[in-house]
Amino acid sequence: MTRTFLIDTDTASDDAVALIMALRAPDVDVKAITIVSGNVSVDKGTRNALYTLELCGANVPVYRGADRPLLREPANAEWFHGIDGLGDQNYPPPEGRPETTHAVDAIIETILANPGIVVVTLGPLTNLALAVSRAPEIVPLVSRCVVMGGAACTVGNTTPAAEFNIWYDPEAARIVFLSGLPVEMVGWELCRFDAVINPDNIAHVRSLNTTLADFVIDCNARAMQAAFEQSREIGIALPDPVAMAVALDPTICTRSSKHAVDVETQSELTRGMTVVDQLGVSGDSRNGRLWKPVIERSNVTVCWEINVPRWKEMLYDALV
Amino acid sequence: MTRTFLIDTDTASDDAVALIMALRAPDVDVKAITIVSGNVSVDKGTRNALYTLELCGANVPVYRGADRPLLREPANAEWFHGIDGLGDQNYPPPEGRPETTHAVDAIIETILANPGIVVVTLGPLTNLALAVSRAPEIVPLVSRCVVMGGAACTVGNTTPAAEFNIWYDPEAARIVFLSGLPVEMVGWELCRFDAVINPDNIAHVRSLNTTLADFVIDCNARAMQAAFEQSREIGIALPDPVAMAVALDPTICTRSSKHAVDVETQSELTRGMTVVDQLGVSGDSRNGRLWKPVIERSNVTVCWEINVPRWKEMLYDALV
Amino acid sequence: MTRTFLIDTDTASDDAVALIMALRAPDVDVKAITIVSGNVSVDKGTRNALYTLELCGANVPVYRGADRPLLREPANAEWFHGIDGLGDQNYPPPEGRPETTHAVDAIIETILANPGIVVVTLGPLTNLALAVSRAPEIVPLVSRCVVMGGAACTVGNTTPAAEFNIWYDPEAARIVFLSGLPVEMVGWELCRFDAVINPDNIAHVRSLNTTLADFVIDCNARAMQAAFEQSREIGIALPDPVAMAVALDPTICTRSSKHAVDVETQSELTRGMTVVDQLGVSGDSRNGRLWKPVIERSNVTVCWEINVPRWKEMLYDALV
Amino acid sequence: MTRTFLIDTDTASDDAVALIMALRAPDVDVKAITIVSGNVSVDKGTRNALYTLELCGANVPVYRGADRPLLREPANAEWFHGIDGLGDQNYPPPEGRPETTHAVDAIIETILANPGIVVVTLGPLTNLALAVSRAPEIVPLVSRCVVMGGAACTVGNTTPAAEFNIWYDPEAARIVFLSGLPVEMVGWELCRFDAVINPDNIAHVRSLNTTLADFVIDCNARAMQAAFEQSREIGIALPDPVAMAVALDPTICTRSSKHAVDVETQSELTRGMTVVDQLGVSGDSRNGRLWKPVIERSNVTVCWEINVPRWKEMLYDALV
Repeated sequence: MTRTFLIDTDTASDDAVALIMALRAPDVDVKAITIVSGNVSVDKGTRNALYTLELCGANVPVYRGADRPLLREPANAEWFHGIDGLGDQNYPPPEGRPETTHAVDAIIETILANPGIVVVTLGPLTNLALAVSRAPEIVPLVSRCVVMGGAACTVGNTTPAAEFNIWYDPEAARIVFLSGLPVEMVGWELCRFDAVINPDNIAHVRSLNTTLADFVIDCNARAMQAAFEQSREIGIALPDPVAMAVALDPTICTRSSKHAVDVETQSELTRGMTVVDQLGVSGDSRNGRLWKPVIERSNVTVCWEINVPRWKEMLYDALV
Repeated sequence: MTRTFLIDTDTASDDAVALIMALRAPDVDVKAITIVSGNVSVDKGTRNALYTLELCGANVPVYRGADRPLLREPANAEWFHGIDGLGDQNYPPPEGRPETTHAVDAIIETILANPGIVVVTLGPLTNLALAVSRAPEIVPLVSRCVVMGGAACTVGNTTPAAEFNIWYDPEAARIVFLSGLPVEMVGWELCRFDAVINPDNIAHVRSLNTTLADFVIDCNARAMQAAFEQSREIGIALPDPVAMAVALDPTICTRSSKHAVDVETQSELTRGMTVVDQLGVSGDSRNGRLWKPVIERSNVTVCWEINVPRWKEMLYDALV
Repeated sequence: MTRTFLIDTDTASDDAVALIMALRAPDVDVKAITIVSGNVSVDKGTRNALYTLELCGANVPVYRGADRPLLREPANAEWFHGIDGLGDQNYPPPEGRPETTHAVDAIIETILANPGIVVVTLGPLTNLALAVSRAPEIVPLVSRCVVMGGAACTVGNTTPAAEFNIWYDPEAARIVFLSGLPVEMVGWELCRFDAVINPDNIAHVRSLNTTLADFVIDCNARAMQAAFEQSREIGIALPDPVAMAVALDPTICTRSSKHAVDVETQSELTRGMTVVDQLGVSGDSRNGRLWKPVIERSNVTVCWEINVPRWKEMLYDALV
Repeated sequence: MTRTFLIDTDTASDDAVALIMALRAPDVDVKAITIVSGNVSVDKGTRNALYTLELCGANVPVYRGADRPLLREPANAEWFHGIDGLGDQNYPPPEGRPETTHAVDAIIETILANPGIVVVTLGPLTNLALAVSRAPEIVPLVSRCVVMGGAACTVGNTTPAAEFNIWYDPEAARIVFLSGLPVEMVGWELCRFDAVINPDNIAHVRSLNTTLADFVIDCNARAMQAAFEQSREIGIALPDPVAMAVALDPTICTRSSKHAVDVETQSELTRGMTVVDQLGVSGDSRNGRLWKPVIERSNVTVCWEINVPRWKEMLYDALV
């Protein structure tokens, strides 16, 4: 049976890989790709999504969305993904054009038209926050909302406390996390350590000898270099494709549990931290008042562990 | 020449008076009334706006909007305005119905269709924040955005630091204040002291002997009682009608100036405070980094003083 | 009857004037002068206090105290008071030396030895906060604690929300305000407008033709220039001497009232704001939980108005 | 060679065990035990420390300290440790009495008199924060400052973000962490999982058949019950003894590293979180300004892992 997906993305190098995985999944019908400001500007993200679509020979409408966070100043990650967001490989401009409808309207309309749809977010949650604020009636129509974002009881990648997507627009993230949407939080930590595409994995991808395989490695070359400069580790960490793997096959996530999860919006130090009540203290006398809205309104499942070999197999399968 | 207005309101007792003033202004064409959660729920606000329209024999589309703040928990002011928001006078239900279009869409469409329109907000800024976030292209099309809200370098009415409308949804207020909209901030302090409709004024309104005159006093009876319980002062304070007076006639505001104005969203103690850089320190070495986005993006004029006799005349004129 | 005073000061130009007023008051016995980091470093403040003492021919022990705020980074006001804190007039170094006892210990010991003492603070509240935290038993022994600091329901002088002394060490201020000490808050606004020492007043001081009179004007020359650069107003604003006037003669304050007063420590935007519950809402359902500790523990009287002619007379009298 | 220790403690059940370990260490001379408000009141903590001393036949001066956090409201953990803090076993009152000197003064004097001393903190950091604020000259005289507190890149035990000791007085913790003291942070997570004293371990302790062995299990009976009620896990978690084990033998910590570590004081949600810059991002363009004081002033080593068998051996050895 075909499943319907909506993908919201700030399309840079790892987003592109995730898009490929979804577009090439045989049983998935991607109804809409909506673009948000994040890794790169909305213009660049739109161009990169269109380019990726054309690489895949896919035909999915692309909608431009919010060009800045709700309250915070924009701050891209071009130092990591390249100025064009795709590793500065001089890819030609895409031939396609985005739709004229705004991403927020497209999200609302697509969900209303496709009850049971799976929403996957690969960027900051600005578009989705605006959609659920404007049209809360879409919440019960979403069967799963797989969010690449956050860090569950672990260190962040952008600040010591926070992951990029949530940090970039923490108010939007908090709106989404407290909206009642069935969020499946796939933190950035799930693409670390043995989940990294290491030199052997890279060699394997190259050996596939397809246009998509080369694209996946090439467009992440700058990201790989940046990671090496930061940590002296060699490999490509792919947070968005890991989240997409979970979206495409929930059994990729081998350990998960439901928790009250709040998003920090009040402090500069911990801005955008995903605060997970892992030990179940949020209802006690110390925490109860503050956590009441989270307990009442949120519906978040945290993914703690993935099946690493199968995640990599899913990636390879998408490239042949 | 006729001017076009859009009024966003959480219609309770003083909002109703402000609506009457606008609807009866001979040279004003109210294109849309949009309802937001605040003093009362969106349902009650919608009903109250429709009722007020019918009292005036006016025919303006009413649009339901956001039923909660962007991030905060709803907290109405029914203790002040009455459970129905109109002083619990057992007014009959209105005959009209709201439009099916959502207030946020109506705001966007109305502004796009009416360049130069005057926007007047009498409630929390949730609807308008969603509109400018979704469609920033409307900002340059608004000629004036008169906001009843805040407290300029003075005490608040809901907390010691904040006025109700801004306190209720501070994130929305910050979005609007930093949107570039030409905000004219009419703080609650402008309806205090000699601007209060005092017993003599009330007697004068009663003596007008019109349905509208009676309605204005009756629907504010609960608010008058609540104010007396709080402060032992007798009279009706009318923040929304004062703002509407300024919107209808800018010369009602006798002293105003442009300032960087930020809205506090980070602290519970000062939540929703409108922080006005009255002395022009926001660009200095201590404040410059924090205030940079406010200086660059905001466009706020603070009203410091009104012509009290003329404001009251405007009110009376609307009731005959 | 002689009254005993303890003065805590970050001695710069206006502090020096306040010290002169106290030292020359016939019925006041200044038991100790304690120095805190603020306008200038503790070293400079100590030197300036010793210099001022020698100018007055007074013999009071001076104690060095905290050289930084409890949690915040130091940030002096040398741009305002001059690099030496006394207008860079090349005053010679003092002959006296500070005591070896630390200011915090001196505060505790002096209060224990002088029940009923009046404490006057002219700088950030770091020393006093450490004293009451270490020895809360001193609280009931202080008859009055006159604090130059804050802004009562009005604009700040350092940020749009905050006055310098409270802004500089907001945590210390909050500790003092919630300590139960009988704080009399003399905000910076009380030295504005007609309370400024204007050109006529300056001419009058000069005409007194005393060393102290010249010193008062000379050491504030840089401050006067800085104020002019900021606001194009000519005159010397003297917050510390106004507070000292109130300390020396409570009737200088012509309108005051007790209120719950909290100090903002959670937000960068409103850091150090003195939040005064002027309208008595702090106990209501919206504010009660947050304000409970303030209501239970604080004992603050806000000074709203001073007798300007008498304040100036007090100043002149101290200089002849 | 004998080492000198100063132990600051809010003496409840696990503190008592840690005290026993230090008092019975043959090469350790405990110069002072200072009491702080935390798990229990200062009065109860003082009594419990005296009682534990007497059980060990030790003679160490005990000093009462701060009876509340610097800025926050007190909130004990009697539900966890029992009303008396020692599991409500009806232990008789101690015969000894605390010294009259205040703990803060005792800390300063003891460190000044014993350069190279090891400071171990088992409770909130109020006393130590007051000591370093009042006398920063003690900082270079401390050879190690082993802090039981915080959670390094993991979940908290009191709120989802924070551990009890740091949460209880976050401002004090931040003062200590930024003081330059050579902090060795031993987070609560190090006493979890296999480091818990499990039923087998408890049986072993009982088999030692000494007064101290029985005391250690008995006084933690309530804590064990509370932990079971929370998590259905059977065993005694002993954060303070684990920290003391590290203090007594640094090789108990098998993996540690230096990091910039800040303490959250600005948000209620993440209050008291120890934010560890594990990945070294605090100096980059996104984090540099905010983290500058932490990078410049702090000197914190985070303990990531302990030798669990040896920690338990150390515990057993102390009880025979």
